[in-house]
Amino acid sequence: MIRVGLLGTGRIGSLHAENIASHRESTLDAVADIDNESANNLAAQFGAIVKSADEVISDPNIDAILIATSTDTHSDFIEKASSAGKAILCEKPVDLNLTRAKKCMDKVSAAKNPIMVGFNRRFDPNFAQLKKSLDNGDIGNRELLTITSFDPAPPPISYVKRSGGLYRDMMIHDFDLSNYIMGELPITISAVGHSLVDPEIGAAGDVDTAVVTMVYADGKIAVIKNSRRAAYGYDQRIEILGSEGLLQAENILENSVVKSNNDGIISAKPKYFFLERYLSAFKAEWNAFVKSINDDEQIAVTLEDGVAALAMAEAATQSQSTGNSIQLKEVL
Amino acid sequence: MIRVGLLGTGRIGSLHAENIASHRESTLDAVADIDNESANNLAAQFGAIVKSADEVISDPNIDAILIATSTDTHSDFIEKASSAGKAILCEKPVDLNLTRAKKCMDKVSAAKNPIMVGFNRRFDPNFAQLKKSLDNGDIGNRELLTITSFDPAPPPISYVKRSGGLYRDMMIHDFDLSNYIMGELPITISAVGHSLVDPEIGAAGDVDTAVVTMVYADGKIAVIKNSRRAAYGYDQRIEILGSEGLLQAENILENSVVKSNNDGIISAKPKYFFLERYLSAFKAEWNAFVKSINDDEQIAVTLEDGVAALAMAEAATQSQSTGNSIQLKEVL
Amino acid sequence: MIRVGLLGTGRIGSLHAENIASHRESTLDAVADIDNESANNLAAQFGAIVKSADEVISDPNIDAILIATSTDTHSDFIEKASSAGKAILCEKPVDLNLTRAKKCMDKVSAAKNPIMVGFNRRFDPNFAQLKKSLDNGDIGNRELLTITSFDPAPPPISYVKRSGGLYRDMMIHDFDLSNYIMGELPITISAVGHSLVDPEIGAAGDVDTAVVTMVYADGKIAVIKNSRRAAYGYDQRIEILGSEGLLQAENILENSVVKSNNDGIISAKPKYFFLERYLSAFKAEWNAFVKSINDDEQIAVTLEDGVAALAMAEAATQSQSTGNSIQLKEVL
Amino acid sequence: MIRVGLLGTGRIGSLHAENIASHRESTLDAVADIDNESANNLAAQFGAIVKSADEVISDPNIDAILIATSTDTHSDFIEKASSAGKAILCEKPVDLNLTRAKKCMDKVSAAKNPIMVGFNRRFDPNFAQLKKSLDNGDIGNRELLTITSFDPAPPPISYVKRSGGLYRDMMIHDFDLSNYIMGELPITISAVGHSLVDPEIGAAGDVDTAVVTMVYADGKIAVIKNSRRAAYGYDQRIEILGSEGLLQAENILENSVVKSNNDGIISAKPKYFFLERYLSAFKAEWNAFVKSINDDEQIAVTLEDGVAALAMAEAATQSQSTGNSIQLKEVL
Repeated sequence: MIRVGLLGTGRIGSLHAENIASHRESTLDAVADIDNESANNLAAQFGAIVKSADEVISDPNIDAILIATSTDTHSDFIEKASSAGKAILCEKPVDLNLTRAKKCMDKVSAAKNPIMVGFNRRFDPNFAQLKKSLDNGDIGNRELLTITSFDPAPPPISYVKRSGGLYRDMMIHDFDLSNYIMGELPITISAVGHSLVDPEIGAAGDVDTAVVTMVYADGKIAVIKNSRRAAYGYDQRIEILGSEGLLQAENILENSVVKSNNDGIISAKPKYFFLERYLSAFKAEWNAFVKSINDDEQIAVTLEDGVAALAMAEAATQSQSTGNSIQLKEVL
Repeated sequence: MIRVGLLGTGRIGSLHAENIASHRESTLDAVADIDNESANNLAAQFGAIVKSADEVISDPNIDAILIATSTDTHSDFIEKASSAGKAILCEKPVDLNLTRAKKCMDKVSAAKNPIMVGFNRRFDPNFAQLKKSLDNGDIGNRELLTITSFDPAPPPISYVKRSGGLYRDMMIHDFDLSNYIMGELPITISAVGHSLVDPEIGAAGDVDTAVVTMVYADGKIAVIKNSRRAAYGYDQRIEILGSEGLLQAENILENSVVKSNNDGIISAKPKYFFLERYLSAFKAEWNAFVKSINDDEQIAVTLEDGVAALAMAEAATQSQSTGNSIQLKEVL
Repeated sequence: MIRVGLLGTGRIGSLHAENIASHRESTLDAVADIDNESANNLAAQFGAIVKSADEVISDPNIDAILIATSTDTHSDFIEKASSAGKAILCEKPVDLNLTRAKKCMDKVSAAKNPIMVGFNRRFDPNFAQLKKSLDNGDIGNRELLTITSFDPAPPPISYVKRSGGLYRDMMIHDFDLSNYIMGELPITISAVGHSLVDPEIGAAGDVDTAVVTMVYADGKIAVIKNSRRAAYGYDQRIEILGSEGLLQAENILENSVVKSNNDGIISAKPKYFFLERYLSAFKAEWNAFVKSINDDEQIAVTLEDGVAALAMAEAATQSQSTGNSIQLKEVL
Repeated sequence: MIRVGLLGTGRIGSLHAENIASHRESTLDAVADIDNESANNLAAQFGAIVKSADEVISDPNIDAILIATSTDTHSDFIEKASSAGKAILCEKPVDLNLTRAKKCMDKVSAAKNPIMVGFNRRFDPNFAQLKKSLDNGDIGNRELLTITSFDPAPPPISYVKRSGGLYRDMMIHDFDLSNYIMGELPITISAVGHSLVDPEIGAAGDVDTAVVTMVYADGKIAVIKNSRRAAYGYDQRIEILGSEGLLQAENILENSVVKSNNDGIISAKPKYFFLERYLSAFKAEWNAFVKSINDDEQIAVTLEDGVAALAMAEAATQSQSTGNSIQLKEVL
């Protein structure tokens, strides 16, 4: 039985708490949050103890730490929890600052404890099936990947301002997903982005609509398309052309009911947002983490993966401002 | 070059005129209709001559007669045109009266001239592909066939009154289609039907919503569903379960545009009615008729086929009124 | 907290045990099965106690009994548990014998304890959404319902022999579903059925492929299609034509990946069987049962519903053997 | 009646000949080709006269010239036919050389005769419906356009070598389509392209897989994806995200038959190539050309449109080689 300490009891922390508690081989023992009320509520719900973050990390009865606090604390907590010999699952991104993230990675590189970064989409069963089919050679060689990732609605402007920008906050998921799908890092990255959805986002120096094109060593190409708004819900699709065919992972709809009337043939919308769409992915992510610890297996998403995705976000940010394509190795 | 005389210049006659005239191996030479103005207009459009029906049939320069007049004249015209040695394409049904249709069939049975009944749906490329796949063994043995056939809107009540009823007028297409798909006639036929769409149809002694179930010699089953109204357009689907899978011929939509918004994911409606949906089927039907004449090939839809479908309509009518299943051989 | 005693620890009992144990307002306290090993294993898994069925029923600490034993014991256990004042969730069917089921219903009719029959499909979120849309008037008046329900593969012949036949064992789900969707019982029932899938099923006096047509008081029609085999998996679809449109509940696929290659455009198969397809329905069923008890709400599927579905199966069996349509009231 | 002279009797010329001859307001009077046999065959088929190109152009009985010769002759023939006062429909591209194309445009700019460039995709009824829906405001403001355009198989290497490269030969269709959909020209163009399909294409200095990203004055973005090979057929899709939803024009399949078996749910492939996929578009294009002449209406695709698309191809070619984004105005 893995005893887990949870740092951060907000929306994403609560989701993890549910998965930790319902897993047969893990229990939620302790929680910490700078908001006492939030921590108390979650603790009461799952029979956990409230402590400070440092107390949780240093508690010898705790086996694993799940870090779901604000991004600026991730690196510190990873380093501390690693020193304490804990298994770690840290929410993405590792840090908004690439230098800091790399320093963290270097610092814990000698540690034996498993450290996993929470790129949940790798665990979506549909994307995993697409990956399996690709690896199985079902469409021959990879040639042209497209990831479409639109949020249903933009976050509050206060969130945008401290988010690190669309590339580090939102597209970082797609950067990691492209690394997972392609099985390698790109060589060059080009980005264009603009604020079309909300002028306040533009005024805050960020973009809300962006396209990134990446080229790989052998000429393969990947395109990532992001928008902070899709009136029809959360649009999460992958499409890859190979030498022998095409693979697409389509959206998951709210239900399978189709209505035909004078307006047309009407299907349900895609599941609204990540809590609905990736419910099973978050569960599978936790399963994978537990399995890695119990079976002493290779971690599915490493700190190196987290740093690579962050470097790609950094490169995209540079490309957007210069209009030129950026060599990833110059950034990494 | 096949010189064609067209009897009947209404909606369906005009459609055939277009196909006759645009085919490279046929010309529209003469037309006849009890409505002089209609006949004149169509003749002018295609450079044909207006004559009486008898004149057209007896014209030695005419090779083929297309009968698109009112149903009560079909048998007479078939007999006359057959006596005159013409190739014949007659719109469905052969007659509303089964006895009269069988008499006609007997009368012309010795004739050498090709006689084809206009069951256009056999020539729809999608249904033909389904049939080909079935014959190819793609889903193993046929087990359970379902034909869904809903008109977009009921015809005028005046038409309903002289139509011979839903089974002879509308479902007769589906009876023929089931014979085509299954490759054999059913043994028993059960029908239930009611007037749900328009009370005037019920008052006229007809039904507008009906389901027929048919059983074949070896136990295979077919279901035909008809409605005179579908708010979303012309619904024309075939589905057949076999021992190794399922084949479905889906509706053809007005266009391929899909709109996603807050109401859902919205595709276009099915093509509105038979003139739009079966445009290519009518063209292919004429091509097949011309090919039969030119290559001296087997006619695709024979007078026997027309009589069989009519007998099935007769059996369904009887079953509906008695609540019992009817043996087709008792009717034939 | 509702303390539950489970009778029957087979496949379906185990599924319920999982849902009982993971629900926040219920616990699995005791289990009983004629197979001691099975009972012990399940008890160990969920920390429950093994007792005899009678001990479970008479245990004053038990609030609710879930009956998942063999069908021939259902009526007896319902009567006993009702006498003991327990809330009851009994798997379908109530009994294979309609007279016995009606006697059971009469016997417990005065009881105040909630008794629910386990027609899980009513709780499928997709079917529930279709029902909601119908009740909302989205397609106007109901006119023509079609339920397609094909199992992936036939059960062992030993199961078939004691199953009560396809109508009582398999189509009973669809009879209940049609009552749920239509909101009323049919007046007449016609059935045709044959053994096409496996000759052993025919030799055992049963059918494996069947079509039932039902007519309602105002002329509405429903069609149910069953097959014991679909090479592509569990086919579970509902389609209903209304005066203003069509509603369809489509199959749920194993995943959303689509592969396009030289063979065509290939989607995943439907989820394999009821354990996969109706996982969320079983969970929602248990939620509804718990909610009924806690909130003293109307039970969603009553013993009357269970008897009605059984009577429809009886009528279908009679219709199949006579070739005539049967009045449901003559059977009820 | 518009009397048409056709220059070029190859594959695309023959297709146009069919549409010219079957249109009620046009006749094919004369044809010319450097291959005498090809010209003679087509002339015989449609009852046209064979002449030299110059004779066709100077024939006072000819009203309109359709130019379907090799690209290097387009500009000359446009200039000559314009001087002769003919209406002109010229196949794309206007020229491989932008300077030459602009010179041609300037030279004929004062002419009153209608000159149309054959970008057939604007006339596809599905794309036209998407455009109409956009202009109707169905999804609010345009934000992010994606055009997917994959050929089923690469052309012969001999064709590739004289094609002007993927951007001028293949993507030029998509450049024009993006101008049509967006209703304006982009400001900047970035391209990445590689040879993944056939090393011979790379050896010839061309690419076979390419992605172009374009940004518009107000920040809107468009992405065009091209590949010379799709194992499943001709992939021709448009997708555009707007402020209130998404519009997609999906592929047109060979037929509507769906087969479900142990391998999955299998639909037909997209129509194989442009002759099949855009059959109705070519017909609608000719209809529009005839209508423009007869009704003295605005030409749907002007020489300016042709030059703009060519300039975009030029910019993409430059961007690919430099890795930087190119300002379209620098090229135009």
